[in-house]
Amino acid sequence: MGKIVFGVDIGGTTVKLGMFDAEGALLTKWEIPTVTKNHGSHILQDIADSVNEKRAAFGYEVQDVIGVGVGTPGPVDAAGVIYGAVNLGWGELNIVKTLQPLVGVPVKAGNDANVAALGEMWKGGGRGCQDIVAVTLGTGVGGGIIINGALVAGFNGAGGEIGHMLVEENETEPCNCGLCGCLEQYASATGVVRLAKRRLAEDETASSLRSLGDTLTCRDVWDAVREGDAAAAEIAKRFGYYLGKGLAAVACVVNPEAFVIGGGVSKAGEILFDYIIPQYQKYVFKGSREAKFLLAKLGNDAGIYGAAKLVLG
Amino acid sequence: MGKIVFGVDIGGTTVKLGMFDAEGALLTKWEIPTVTKNHGSHILQDIADSVNEKRAAFGYEVQDVIGVGVGTPGPVDAAGVIYGAVNLGWGELNIVKTLQPLVGVPVKAGNDANVAALGEMWKGGGRGCQDIVAVTLGTGVGGGIIINGALVAGFNGAGGEIGHMLVEENETEPCNCGLCGCLEQYASATGVVRLAKRRLAEDETASSLRSLGDTLTCRDVWDAVREGDAAAAEIAKRFGYYLGKGLAAVACVVNPEAFVIGGGVSKAGEILFDYIIPQYQKYVFKGSREAKFLLAKLGNDAGIYGAAKLVLG
Repeated sequence: MGKIVFGVDIGGTTVKLGMFDAEGALLTKWEIPTVTKNHGSHILQDIADSVNEKRAAFGYEVQDVIGVGVGTPGPVDAAGVIYGAVNLGWGELNIVKTLQPLVGVPVKAGNDANVAALGEMWKGGGRGCQDIVAVTLGTGVGGGIIINGALVAGFNGAGGEIGHMLVEENETEPCNCGLCGCLEQYASATGVVRLAKRRLAEDETASSLRSLGDTLTCRDVWDAVREGDAAAAEIAKRFGYYLGKGLAAVACVVNPEAFVIGGGVSKAGEILFDYIIPQYQKYVFKGSREAKFLLAKLGNDAGIYGAAKLVLG
Repeated sequence: MGKIVFGVDIGGTTVKLGMFDAEGALLTKWEIPTVTKNHGSHILQDIADSVNEKRAAFGYEVQDVIGVGVGTPGPVDAAGVIYGAVNLGWGELNIVKTLQPLVGVPVKAGNDANVAALGEMWKGGGRGCQDIVAVTLGTGVGGGIIINGALVAGFNGAGGEIGHMLVEENETEPCNCGLCGCLEQYASATGVVRLAKRRLAEDETASSLRSLGDTLTCRDVWDAVREGDAAAAEIAKRFGYYLGKGLAAVACVVNPEAFVIGGGVSKAGEILFDYIIPQYQKYVFKGSREAKFLLAKLGNDAGIYGAAKLVLG
């Protein structure tokens, strides 16, 4: 058995890397730039060079390394094949087969949101649970489904794409994915801002949010909710309606022990749950009524933890 | 390694039993009545007696038996604990711990719809797939989620309860579960009849279904669709809308390779897909667009096959 494992989280501008011991203690973490030129053909070589260099700098041999786990944007199947990642310049690519010879140790790969979910189950907000749904409320809405401690990658790598579940049939503006009425259009950070602008445009209700104009952010909305702003509370209620209803549908499928909520929107904290849980309870099948709602804890490190866990199994 | 395995499917009126070899060939199958008196306290003893008797009749010893798998209505968790089954008279009951001493071999238990899903993956319509969602369109709508060849029981045994996913927010009549607008209210056999009666009551459009009055069945609707009845086609379209939309939401969660459609409604055959698939395609996230739609093949035997598979792992 080796002594260390590497977790790698590829983003559009930087690659985050972590070196862990076999129990998951983070020994060191660092970042390198993501070089997307030439269709991202440098990315995996750069990761291999950086991993090999860090390993040597800490005095470890290749045989000390249990493996390298990788999280990346885009759909990744259980065999480690990615079916295209636009912001990295990648088309279809077998990450495992490409990276393995460059590092000389086993490689595992998964979708970044899925891998972050695994990290949160292992060392974060879902610690102690084996069946969780991790929900990342960021620029978009990502999801990661963990059953019996293992990721549900999906047959085409599209497991946990809960941001693209239909929650509003009357929507006319399209989501980035081309559909209309996706959960992401209401529960992401941009979605909350969109809900806010729509609400403010409906009438002349006084609100501290009005003075912010186009600078209005998701954070402003939650700050206003905390300050008792009535319009902000209505916006939060709509956010909670869409997310609670969407997660109730997710629960009908996998009946998780807990939902672990992360991403930028989750920085608002427990107040989110005041708006999500009543709506979840309203729409959910009784068998899933007791699901817990937890906040993610690892922040931007969830990806490197989960990638390491992907290797440790 | 033992030589035979028993699969047991408990229903409200009869218990179906099957004896299989280790490769899953059905050696014999039979039925016994379900005795629900005294809170169903006879059921597991009756099953044990019947299994032991059949084993002996075929000349096998206890050590020849790999195990006994059981499917039952109600939510069953991964440890084999059922949290109540009204039509059997059961409250909370540890099926595994109760039955194991009576048969002297390992016991596994699961929800009947989940177990039937496993059977369809193993020897039925989903043969060759490892990631399927089985959908049983019967009196209600049941579901079974199989990931990497294993059942998703759910933390409270409520995995795959897709019949209780909200698909119609404007519904005013309650589902049996107490919620309003569940998939089961439109896509079950009773749901199709309900859609039919509603459609016929809307106007005076001529339809062969009108003469049937209260005897109208789900089968009549599909027969009329095949005969070119315009109102029946509209009913089928509504059925397809609810089921296609619901399965698109399921796909956002687990991204299966295939949906395997069974239960009484599925006797209509491939014509169902003409109504389900276009709606599924309309609402589904692109990553799940290629999911296959297959018909279940094992009929009422899916439960005994799946229960045997539960033991074989």
